[in-house]
Amino acid sequence: MEGLEEFNEFRTKMNKRILDSGHMGVKRFWALDDRAYISNHLDEKTLELLGLATSMVLRCDDCVTYHIIRCIQLGFTDDELYDALNVALIVGGSITIPHIRRAFETIDKCRNKQKTDPQLKSLL
Amino acid sequence: MEGLEEFNEFRTKMNKRILDSGHMGVKRFWALDDRAYISNHLDEKTLELLGLATSMVLRCDDCVTYHIIRCIQLGFTDDELYDALNVALIVGGSITIPHIRRAFETIDKCRNKQKTDPQLKSLL
Amino acid sequence: MEGLEEFNEFRTKMNKRILDSGHMGVKRFWALDDRAYISNHLDEKTLELLGLATSMVLRCDDCVTYHIIRCIQLGFTDDELYDALNVALIVGGSITIPHIRRAFETIDKCRNKQKTDPQLKSLL
Amino acid sequence: MEGLEEFNEFRTKMNKRILDSGHMGVKRFWALDDRAYISNHLDEKTLELLGLATSMVLRCDDCVTYHIIRCIQLGFTDDELYDALNVALIVGGSITIPHIRRAFETIDKCRNKQKTDPQLKSLL
Amino acid sequence: MEGLEEFNEFRTKMNKRILDSGHMGVKRFWALDDRAYISNHLDEKTLELLGLATSMVLRCDDCVTYHIIRCIQLGFTDDELYDALNVALIVGGSITIPHIRRAFETIDKCRNKQKTDPQLKSLL
Amino acid sequence: MEGLEEFNEFRTKMNKRILDSGHMGVKRFWALDDRAYISNHLDEKTLELLGLATSMVLRCDDCVTYHIIRCIQLGFTDDELYDALNVALIVGGSITIPHIRRAFETIDKCRNKQKTDPQLKSLL
Repeated sequence: MEGLEEFNEFRTKMNKRILDSGHMGVKRFWALDDRAYISNHLDEKTLELLGLATSMVLRCDDCVTYHIIRCIQLGFTDDELYDALNVALIVGGSITIPHIRRAFETIDKCRNKQKTDPQLKSLL
Repeated sequence: MEGLEEFNEFRTKMNKRILDSGHMGVKRFWALDDRAYISNHLDEKTLELLGLATSMVLRCDDCVTYHIIRCIQLGFTDDELYDALNVALIVGGSITIPHIRRAFETIDKCRNKQKTDPQLKSLL
Repeated sequence: MEGLEEFNEFRTKMNKRILDSGHMGVKRFWALDDRAYISNHLDEKTLELLGLATSMVLRCDDCVTYHIIRCIQLGFTDDELYDALNVALIVGGSITIPHIRRAFETIDKCRNKQKTDPQLKSLL
Repeated sequence: MEGLEEFNEFRTKMNKRILDSGHMGVKRFWALDDRAYISNHLDEKTLELLGLATSMVLRCDDCVTYHIIRCIQLGFTDDELYDALNVALIVGGSITIPHIRRAFETIDKCRNKQKTDPQLKSLL
Repeated sequence: MEGLEEFNEFRTKMNKRILDSGHMGVKRFWALDDRAYISNHLDEKTLELLGLATSMVLRCDDCVTYHIIRCIQLGFTDDELYDALNVALIVGGSITIPHIRRAFETIDKCRNKQKTDPQLKSLL
Repeated sequence: MEGLEEFNEFRTKMNKRILDSGHMGVKRFWALDDRAYISNHLDEKTLELLGLATSMVLRCDDCVTYHIIRCIQLGFTDDELYDALNVALIVGGSITIPHIRRAFETIDKCRNKQKTDPQLKSLL
């Protein structure tokens, strides 16, 4: 599994590449996606947790990595993240287990990174 | 689309039928499923909302109906449910739209039923 | 399987209900979805066919019904639709077969409706 | 849920309709699909059970109904079918539960039909 | 992400390995798969684009890479590919975004390779 | 593709990490998952093969690798595994092909490892 920095670097580079393509539909989708996680009637933390759990049941490792970083930036504890991942495990079944393993590893990497970058400001 | 009562009746009848089959694996899964939505490090409302959003991206109408009823029993407002469904719509794409339509109809049916049964006690 | 008119009526009613909810995210998604099928570098017919094939591999009957109606409004022949459904069948496998059956029935219903409404103007 | 006879009638009618369409790709897929369940290095019963479990994790009710009928024609007991459905439930998660409910109902309908048609010869 | 050459090499090696296994069902599926993209009532370019869009909504990176190479061999422009990917993004939602990123990178790799191999003859 | 040893090492390490997290729901799911493949009314070999085929149609490479190792430990021949993978290929479609390629490679790696470790005792 690649490191958090490699994940972030590729994500940033390709987002720029995609938005520079000039396709209006894609550009608007990116904006709409960002907006879905901004506090509205539900607060930002709850919205982000929904992003994490839905990404897990759809088994997208990159999406899970992104939402774990965001959830930790927003102050979720490990135990809270485990509760959310547990719902995803029950809903999605054992087919999510390899992704659950990688999610736990990502949580550990984030906690390790917080020793030198407490807010994970260098990511995303 | 069937009514809330028909949904509830079939669900209750078949759950009994399945648990009466005597299969220990299935029985334990049912218990584990119930337990995943009981307050732990995350509160009950957040866990239920995770159930709703994950069910929507996996496009299971019956699961969505169940979690909408539960969410309304727990006191979520329509606007809060729309926020959660909006995350699911962005994550899961337009393929969720027919299920979003049925989810809105289910919300309306629940609100209508609350006129005579405010806690939706006759359901689930 | 419900008729084309029932499909259309429920779709129209619930779209109005959803857009009247006032949720900006959902409203913008609906607009973005419409726009994705308007001629750009690819023409409208090709875009619509992509909508049909992607809906089939994701096995969404309502989405398939919608795109079949649109494809027929745009002038596709049955043989062309079969070619597109065949790609979806190969890509998505035998699990799509029940949806393929319903898609063929929908094509037949549309052709039958064209006897009195050649442009399917009463639908969508 | 429709009855076994209605399921069978629609399936038979639309299979004929599809094969009569003259599309060679679709026709060959249908033949290849039939062949995958004929005894080879694995026996017919095992192959059919694989069809049932894969259909369940992909959550296709019609496919599940078809394979339950076939499995019962081949002599599987209820307890054996529950074991297979239990694997699918663990692998696929709680999102399969509504389909598990309908599968148990289908098993019961088949057992009931066997009182007058022990080999389920009138189906498929 | 591996290079186009590594992708092609592994694909070629394993296709040979699989076809040499002597399993008739698998062999016939491979043939049927090839045939689905040969001009029939729809032309080859449209069929290939259907392959690309369906692969994207099902989120299979290798399948997307294959169809991008084929689409570029058949003469699609970048803007046309973006339109097709945009439909897949809308249909499939933000869960496709990591795959969209890798698809754009694959397009760039193909364009770069075309500087020395304009028809991408060394691939597939 | 990583080797069998790397797969096994990461799996073992992260399973320990996850079970050490102290989350009861996750811990019970792990136990229930193990139990689903223990002989009951169906024998262990059949249950394991169901695990393989369901993992393939859901396209989880790690799950497929795990079940191939287990199936080979239980004595399945290559031809029997090909029959099971062929059902998964038909049910799941060409989107499974990249996973089928990796499954064949995993079978070959297991057979190679059996030269020095006939029971694959060093794995799982």
